[in-house]
Amino acid sequence: MKISKIEHLGIAVQSIDAVLPYFRDVLGLEVYKTEVVEDQKVKTAFMQVGEVKIELLEPTSPESTVQKFLDNGGRGVHHVAFKVEDGLSEALAMCDAQGIRLIDKAPRKGADNLNIAFLHPKSTVGILTELCEA
Amino acid sequence: MKISKIEHLGIAVQSIDAVLPYFRDVLGLEVYKTEVVEDQKVKTAFMQVGEVKIELLEPTSPESTVQKFLDNGGRGVHHVAFKVEDGLSEALAMCDAQGIRLIDKAPRKGADNLNIAFLHPKSTVGILTELCEA
Repeated sequence: MKISKIEHLGIAVQSIDAVLPYFRDVLGLEVYKTEVVEDQKVKTAFMQVGEVKIELLEPTSPESTVQKFLDNGGRGVHHVAFKVEDGLSEALAMCDAQGIRLIDKAPRKGADNLNIAFLHPKSTVGILTELCEA
Repeated sequence: MKISKIEHLGIAVQSIDAVLPYFRDVLGLEVYKTEVVEDQKVKTAFMQVGEVKIELLEPTSPESTVQKFLDNGGRGVHHVAFKVEDGLSEALAMCDAQGIRLIDKAPRKGADNLNIAFLHPKSTVGILTELCEA
């Protein structure tokens, strides 16, 4: 697999509005886009830090996996997303062949118009891992 | 505060040797340096992904805060480090003035020859946050 960069960090929050003062006034970051991802039952807010996006994730439903993460005491970084340069389908096939547990067996549409797929944290050092391609 | 990039992600692992096959054979990343940081009671291994370093953190003592993080069920991303361009001391003073809880009231030496200081996750959206300057 050829990874060019960390595409984004997904940060789970109960309320984007509640945490924005920290990101804006302390870290000096600005939200350049918000987007509801129906599929994942989250509202997102994007900020750019160098080449990496910070993606705040606010659940829009009690059934959202992000809400479950928060309810189970999860805080902060919810997932790490890597940008794959040599084909997402090929990367998933390679992961599968190496015994990595796939959450998504095929690429699907994610936020910010990317093709994405998640790998299960039990196979990825405890880090919920997303692979993306433009 | 002027942040230019995410300097590194600190990933807590019980054994660097045990997780290297994942990073190397699945993600295709290479360790370019290992370093013991006595002060933090960890062994570290560095990999580069675009402009961001991934810093694996293996406790070298039961008293290591990384061991405590693992013992308390923490997995994956242990901290996020931002590179500050306009003075680390000044950034800490600004954080303090804004009511952010500081773990380090003044910069100290960290891994990879950086000056660093940590902010408490209770003040930073649940993310243990490190500020660094070269």
